[in-house]
Amino acid sequence: MRVDINCDMGESYGRWSLGDDAAMMDIITSANVACGFHGGDPNVMVETARLAKEKGVSIGAHPGFNDLWGFGRRVIRGDTMEEIERMIAYQIGAMQACAALAGHKVTYVKAHGALGNLVNEEMDFAKALGRAIKGVDPSMGYMTQPARPTQQVAEEMGLTPIAEIFADRAYEDDGQLVNRKKPGAVLHDAEEAAKRVLAMVRDQAITTASGKRIPATIDTICVHGDGATAVAMARRVRAVLEADGVEIKPFGAA
Amino acid sequence: MRVDINCDMGESYGRWSLGDDAAMMDIITSANVACGFHGGDPNVMVETARLAKEKGVSIGAHPGFNDLWGFGRRVIRGDTMEEIERMIAYQIGAMQACAALAGHKVTYVKAHGALGNLVNEEMDFAKALGRAIKGVDPSMGYMTQPARPTQQVAEEMGLTPIAEIFADRAYEDDGQLVNRKKPGAVLHDAEEAAKRVLAMVRDQAITTASGKRIPATIDTICVHGDGATAVAMARRVRAVLEADGVEIKPFGAA
Amino acid sequence: MRVDINCDMGESYGRWSLGDDAAMMDIITSANVACGFHGGDPNVMVETARLAKEKGVSIGAHPGFNDLWGFGRRVIRGDTMEEIERMIAYQIGAMQACAALAGHKVTYVKAHGALGNLVNEEMDFAKALGRAIKGVDPSMGYMTQPARPTQQVAEEMGLTPIAEIFADRAYEDDGQLVNRKKPGAVLHDAEEAAKRVLAMVRDQAITTASGKRIPATIDTICVHGDGATAVAMARRVRAVLEADGVEIKPFGAA
Amino acid sequence: MRVDINCDMGESYGRWSLGDDAAMMDIITSANVACGFHGGDPNVMVETARLAKEKGVSIGAHPGFNDLWGFGRRVIRGDTMEEIERMIAYQIGAMQACAALAGHKVTYVKAHGALGNLVNEEMDFAKALGRAIKGVDPSMGYMTQPARPTQQVAEEMGLTPIAEIFADRAYEDDGQLVNRKKPGAVLHDAEEAAKRVLAMVRDQAITTASGKRIPATIDTICVHGDGATAVAMARRVRAVLEADGVEIKPFGAA
Repeated sequence: MRVDINCDMGESYGRWSLGDDAAMMDIITSANVACGFHGGDPNVMVETARLAKEKGVSIGAHPGFNDLWGFGRRVIRGDTMEEIERMIAYQIGAMQACAALAGHKVTYVKAHGALGNLVNEEMDFAKALGRAIKGVDPSMGYMTQPARPTQQVAEEMGLTPIAEIFADRAYEDDGQLVNRKKPGAVLHDAEEAAKRVLAMVRDQAITTASGKRIPATIDTICVHGDGATAVAMARRVRAVLEADGVEIKPFGAA
Repeated sequence: MRVDINCDMGESYGRWSLGDDAAMMDIITSANVACGFHGGDPNVMVETARLAKEKGVSIGAHPGFNDLWGFGRRVIRGDTMEEIERMIAYQIGAMQACAALAGHKVTYVKAHGALGNLVNEEMDFAKALGRAIKGVDPSMGYMTQPARPTQQVAEEMGLTPIAEIFADRAYEDDGQLVNRKKPGAVLHDAEEAAKRVLAMVRDQAITTASGKRIPATIDTICVHGDGATAVAMARRVRAVLEADGVEIKPFGAA
Repeated sequence: MRVDINCDMGESYGRWSLGDDAAMMDIITSANVACGFHGGDPNVMVETARLAKEKGVSIGAHPGFNDLWGFGRRVIRGDTMEEIERMIAYQIGAMQACAALAGHKVTYVKAHGALGNLVNEEMDFAKALGRAIKGVDPSMGYMTQPARPTQQVAEEMGLTPIAEIFADRAYEDDGQLVNRKKPGAVLHDAEEAAKRVLAMVRDQAITTASGKRIPATIDTICVHGDGATAVAMARRVRAVLEADGVEIKPFGAA
Repeated sequence: MRVDINCDMGESYGRWSLGDDAAMMDIITSANVACGFHGGDPNVMVETARLAKEKGVSIGAHPGFNDLWGFGRRVIRGDTMEEIERMIAYQIGAMQACAALAGHKVTYVKAHGALGNLVNEEMDFAKALGRAIKGVDPSMGYMTQPARPTQQVAEEMGLTPIAEIFADRAYEDDGQLVNRKKPGAVLHDAEEAAKRVLAMVRDQAITTASGKRIPATIDTICVHGDGATAVAMARRVRAVLEADGVEIKPFGAA
């Protein structure tokens, strides 16, 4: 039994630093690298790819809305789905080139922030992301959420889904993340989170807040790297999985 | 005898239009496509690539400084050469992905505006551009100016130089363009420009303002597309070349 | 009987031009000047203020979402109302300073594009705009739509409402503009539009698409300036009003 | 004897934090607030103004080049001096409005980063800044460096110069700061810096690296707030001045 651990990385921008990427690179096996639209810049992208390469960590393009100010967390409505597809493709290509400078390779795509929510909520957005992947390089994986539009679209389009669960988020019965504003939406205890992750991985199923079981291939676990608590939780998740004999490896690695 | 004709294209941005790309695509054989930093956006980039594909026109990435407000015409000093290299690579990659969506392919790179001047004036900048090309895809051509740092660097790095002359600009004896502020720097008469281009192509040499002859392989002719006069001059340049039996084809085409 | 005519102006940006501001300045009495977030830049803002000053045209700050790419037409959700207030205040202040360089003065505020729709649809947004006006300079007018949240908020906050009707848009029975996607939402005939405006101004009431009459103080008429047809309609609206003896003057002018 | 202490503040942007503004507000008496072009945003600007108000700290607009990525530290050439003037005015106005929301008032202007260097090196830039201040609100002070173009221009234009010295920078004999690349350009020892500041304030003269004395009215001392060492030096500078009986007050305060 094996699983991948992914985290958003490369979110610094120009003079501004964010996250403890160096620490996280020793914990995770896949880095979702910001592509300059909501965070990241060409320098940060190359440096992040270089560090990932050095640590044997896979990299994914992590496109977001063109919203530096809002860090890609604001929902922007008004683009056509063709425009969304192109905006995503642009970022994937930029990331590929930066990865190339670092001698590394982009092997998957995961949407960020508000765009990440939309692809998991609306079929149109999930398809736009699918077309971007297919148009740029169909061999790249499509990071999905089990039972959500992303998973369905990846399968229907013949792309490789990489299904993720979140270490610190509670689930609704339809597989959606519980809204952050609701009580219990976010798990704060590292030990509890780690044990829940282990149980879901062993069971190959999501356990929802109500106790419902959603069977799912679980390919990767999403952890966070912003703040000491987040890093500690990520570390604990990995330790608990390894202690139980689960192998931690990048998705698709030999 | 054959030659390519290139022009800056895809310089619209969001709500704002610029240039008569449709008209120019019938005149040129290579389109230097803005990559979103000084002009252009993912939509414009894909649409421009699609139109180029349809018309049998080659496309090149046309990276510039990250300066939408100044349209990439302002000189920005302060980046390291590694930062310049990465900034260029980012734009090339973005263009490659947008080209892919349009079923087309980026086959060369030409720097825009102030960055274009710097790579033709300073060896460091020419090298940074060379490294970006080499790092992303060394099979792409490097659009150069004869007798300038770009030409020398492309040759030294083992890249494919595509040497260009300008249809409407006078030359100094060292091969540099006469500064626009000097009298006679810009040719305004279409007929005169066309005849000068033909002479230089036939002679495979630049004729400077003082009458000096700089022998040079001339691969492509740079024309402009902003404004009715520019389009007319471009059309005349092509007509005069063709009337004299010069074949107009994309660089490297069979 | 008198009325003001307003139009969005100063929407060029850097190298990109938009609209025929020179022509429109002879038709309108109030210019809604873009403040650099969705269009406009410091140069354009000062030049537009200067031209307005010269022509005796009032100027208003015309803040929009921070979305140059989308021209402020995309709805951006995720900011708190305090953030919206501050974002608007920032733009008003920038406009005031640019007006000062031109020897002119900002006398009102009108929200642009998607932000303009939101303030006329949602009370929270209307209040955020009201607080920005009040906080920066409460003597500035608040451009509103009759029977909509803007009008109510301006009145409740003790600000000066400047109620506008649209020359080319049909109205729902609640005073909202008919969605552009519905048939008949936009009037294309200049003569018809001009006559409808005259009728509404004489009647001091909006006539809705269904024929309902919404009594309203009508202070200003919104016209458009993008494209030859728009300019012609604006000109016709003014001519028809003047021919009927309606005085065309900036709101609040002696 | 009294003097002001100023520091760059409000340099966070959206999701990214920078500097320990809370700590610095207890040490300084004047805050140079970034205006959104190189750092800062409407939220940060209002919050910084609010905190300054609370602590009795004066605020100045701190305009920079429109270069978020480069944090305003890259030199951008190509604008006319009228464009520079307008770009600065825009930022001053934006800051005034944000200050108004916080119940505070902008009382001076200091240019940031590369723009700050240019106004102290080139007369044209110093004049453009002077015209911006004069055009927007001539009662605002003009933060200058003794014996440099800023000082001369402020005096010639009838503006109020606020002459600053740097706590941690060595001086050339012409009053310019020693280039950071030269050895000894930056003082790292808090005690040494504090004593040098005290000596210069008491003497009302700059002491250059070579030992030359440049008589100068010293109105304010520039300290830094990025990093623990910087904060400690700032605190020491203030303590040493106060211990010697120098009163620390905002420039112009009663």
